[in-house]
Amino acid sequence: MDRPLIIAGKTFNSRLMTGTGKYRSIEQMQHSILASGCEIVTVAVRRVQTKAAGHEGLAEAIDWTKIWMLPNTAGCQTAEDAVRVARLGREMAKLLGQEDNNFVKLEVIPDGKYLLPDPIGTLQAAEQLVKEGFAVLPYINADPLLAKRLEEAGCATVMPLGSPIGSGQGIRNLANIQIIIENAKVPVVVDAGIGTPSEAAQAMEIGADALLINTAIACAENAPLMAEAMGLAAVAGRLGYLAGRIPVAKVAIASSPMTGTITS
Amino acid sequence: MDRPLIIAGKTFNSRLMTGTGKYRSIEQMQHSILASGCEIVTVAVRRVQTKAAGHEGLAEAIDWTKIWMLPNTAGCQTAEDAVRVARLGREMAKLLGQEDNNFVKLEVIPDGKYLLPDPIGTLQAAEQLVKEGFAVLPYINADPLLAKRLEEAGCATVMPLGSPIGSGQGIRNLANIQIIIENAKVPVVVDAGIGTPSEAAQAMEIGADALLINTAIACAENAPLMAEAMGLAAVAGRLGYLAGRIPVAKVAIASSPMTGTITS
Amino acid sequence: MDRPLIIAGKTFNSRLMTGTGKYRSIEQMQHSILASGCEIVTVAVRRVQTKAAGHEGLAEAIDWTKIWMLPNTAGCQTAEDAVRVARLGREMAKLLGQEDNNFVKLEVIPDGKYLLPDPIGTLQAAEQLVKEGFAVLPYINADPLLAKRLEEAGCATVMPLGSPIGSGQGIRNLANIQIIIENAKVPVVVDAGIGTPSEAAQAMEIGADALLINTAIACAENAPLMAEAMGLAAVAGRLGYLAGRIPVAKVAIASSPMTGTITS
Amino acid sequence: MDRPLIIAGKTFNSRLMTGTGKYRSIEQMQHSILASGCEIVTVAVRRVQTKAAGHEGLAEAIDWTKIWMLPNTAGCQTAEDAVRVARLGREMAKLLGQEDNNFVKLEVIPDGKYLLPDPIGTLQAAEQLVKEGFAVLPYINADPLLAKRLEEAGCATVMPLGSPIGSGQGIRNLANIQIIIENAKVPVVVDAGIGTPSEAAQAMEIGADALLINTAIACAENAPLMAEAMGLAAVAGRLGYLAGRIPVAKVAIASSPMTGTITS
Repeated sequence: MDRPLIIAGKTFNSRLMTGTGKYRSIEQMQHSILASGCEIVTVAVRRVQTKAAGHEGLAEAIDWTKIWMLPNTAGCQTAEDAVRVARLGREMAKLLGQEDNNFVKLEVIPDGKYLLPDPIGTLQAAEQLVKEGFAVLPYINADPLLAKRLEEAGCATVMPLGSPIGSGQGIRNLANIQIIIENAKVPVVVDAGIGTPSEAAQAMEIGADALLINTAIACAENAPLMAEAMGLAAVAGRLGYLAGRIPVAKVAIASSPMTGTITS
Repeated sequence: MDRPLIIAGKTFNSRLMTGTGKYRSIEQMQHSILASGCEIVTVAVRRVQTKAAGHEGLAEAIDWTKIWMLPNTAGCQTAEDAVRVARLGREMAKLLGQEDNNFVKLEVIPDGKYLLPDPIGTLQAAEQLVKEGFAVLPYINADPLLAKRLEEAGCATVMPLGSPIGSGQGIRNLANIQIIIENAKVPVVVDAGIGTPSEAAQAMEIGADALLINTAIACAENAPLMAEAMGLAAVAGRLGYLAGRIPVAKVAIASSPMTGTITS
Repeated sequence: MDRPLIIAGKTFNSRLMTGTGKYRSIEQMQHSILASGCEIVTVAVRRVQTKAAGHEGLAEAIDWTKIWMLPNTAGCQTAEDAVRVARLGREMAKLLGQEDNNFVKLEVIPDGKYLLPDPIGTLQAAEQLVKEGFAVLPYINADPLLAKRLEEAGCATVMPLGSPIGSGQGIRNLANIQIIIENAKVPVVVDAGIGTPSEAAQAMEIGADALLINTAIACAENAPLMAEAMGLAAVAGRLGYLAGRIPVAKVAIASSPMTGTITS
Repeated sequence: MDRPLIIAGKTFNSRLMTGTGKYRSIEQMQHSILASGCEIVTVAVRRVQTKAAGHEGLAEAIDWTKIWMLPNTAGCQTAEDAVRVARLGREMAKLLGQEDNNFVKLEVIPDGKYLLPDPIGTLQAAEQLVKEGFAVLPYINADPLLAKRLEEAGCATVMPLGSPIGSGQGIRNLANIQIIIENAKVPVVVDAGIGTPSEAAQAMEIGADALLINTAIACAENAPLMAEAMGLAAVAGRLGYLAGRIPVAKVAIASSPMTGTITS
């Protein structure tokens, strides 16, 4: 009964996106992607290009006839750098058979400790990439005004973070994400920080359109099992959103009127 | 890969229990029970006996060859009252075909506003009912010492509440429930207060053995859809528990080493 | 403009109680008690009697003409034990010059890991001690029904815990403490778990009548400074409660109507 | 034992700033400013200039020989507008006797519902105002990278919001504010959203240098009493920060070794 997720005109049934980093092995990654039910997987262009540790053969290990590639600009500290890497990402997608893939997950991250994105550089890069025909999915702090600016600049989604990348702190800025969702006309994808299925479900329940989860799956003790858990949680949260939750009441409300008297 | 839930020697595959109160119609209840995938449904003995509003035909509307009945003592303010109603519940289960059903969800609730259970009366009633051969599932405040006392008295589970019945406030006493789980040798069933799938998943992730959810399903805008969401969330949370979550980190952890340099 | 705190007919101006355990030195304890502005200090009878490490000379180090002693039954695992220690506490108070002091902070704690109180044993001991003329201040889990039972048994206050003793986790069961406050006719003293001034203020803001804080002061890096902070926080929270906080609004509310237009 | 607060070379002893909006009367405002102990009061230039409702005589009602004025640009939707109003503010301060006052609280707020600031416009206006010799205190979303950019642009402080203006939701983005504090070389002033003394204390405890609170005081049931509470809470939180809180422990830690045995 749900409508599909549509990003830049392309339709997806799963609302969970995953990544390729940090898995213990290529096999773990393959099993986890499958178990999650995801249809979009993000790939760090820079690391694939340079064959960074853990990235050899990574791009070839995924069946790109079934999974839509979301090249990302991880490792870019400036707008210029990110624009350049985005172009490389487009080439990479083409080489791997996705001729019409113009998607890019835009990350402009000057800070090495918290890996938080630069709002100014992100907006600059987004404006340039939109001009060049990219479908831009920018990774941002949960700033409602920045989200609106990026939407007006033509971005395909906004991707506010729940908490720092890989931290597993969950959604630490729920209020701002709710405001972004309320105001957005493009899909809102909560990205970064989710550590547990309940946090995944929570993001979907407040109306997020999709999630991107990498570390919480790849670094779980049992990655494929956590992938399955996250896939189910995304659906559970989405259905919960559609089903319309009960209001929060200050006092208790009995399960039925206390009118019964026993005649035994 | 999960082991089943075993309560008083009886085996269940679903870890979600539901109820029968507050539904808009019998049909809504039937569809919701089905959609939730639950195998245990609790029934207010007192209201069925008295044919309270909304309870006519209720007991007959469920297929008791597939669903295990959990008679409850809702509406009882004292231990004596609860013991009496528990006995009626056993008769009811027998009449409906469950000859060997000795389960009772024990509620001793003197307070009409928050519907919080009386620890003293609950312990007294539990001791008596255990003596009479019941499998007792007591509804309690999340008090670790009381939980231990009830376990020692021979209860089949403990059922700590997350927040007041029907309030949808979620799990407001997580720390105590965690201590109960850590110490219990019987299954811990989180009961009351859950409002959303994320809250259901959260309870399972910290190691609860099962959940009982009624109002959040029955009073959702779309009850059967919420039932499905809760069923999925219980599984997602359980798998998340088994999969072993990532630790919470204070800072960010990049998805892969920042060693790449581009050679384009 | 505040009314004083009255416990068992005795009047106090400060709403912060402190303890004597865990200080680095007797001098630190003395300075901290002074800096906190407290008028009630709790003392572990058992440890003073046995001259446990850190307790030699402790009772003599406090000016009992200015500070009201609150003997406590720490270290007691059963009701019987607690009753016995309470009687010793009364003797100790008399010996130190407080002839009319019948106060006892009742702790019945069978569990050594979380130091959580036993509701059944606590109620039993309270009933006995009330009979013997004690002003009983029972340490309890935040269980509203138990609190009501203890009040009906004649206790002078109830002392729900915020979180385990010494844990500094803050107030992890706010909802239950609010219900206790709403229903209580005796003073409610939040005891255990508070780690910071903000948590102290929070307890007072929801209407607690007083606080008991020991570890958070004694084990702070600078104990007397933290004592001063806690004393101020208790007052700040109390005044905040009396002043009537603004409602929580979902959206923003401008500091004044946005009607201005500039005519420069 | 604390060092004073220094902003743009000017020294203050109080770490609480207040405002002038929304009071029920000029008298209430005067009493509240006094009771809070604050030394800095912010004034909406635009509303004073236009003599908006509730702002007639406002500027004259404060003793500017004792209170340092912080003109703000409330009501400005663009950088240009804010720069213009900041200049008017400087004139206003001079007219009221503060010849050397170059302070401006910079607000660029295009959104009327949540009153959230525009990061791009704020940075632009800040750069211009710094050039013109202003001490700029920008109101921002709690975005660590934006805070760093503003600091590098020469701002005198950063003023991250806790939650939307006037909402009383408290600090909804603690994690980001902590990162800002950790990285900032200029004072961090938490502004907007604080509703209670405990929330004020909490901001100070994590190391904020100061607070700005308006609505929570002006709209409290008893404004001067809440002003006093907030003043005390700011000090309590500051002392708590300086005193060094205890670590949060997972289990309980007894107030003294459980070695005592009674020899009665």
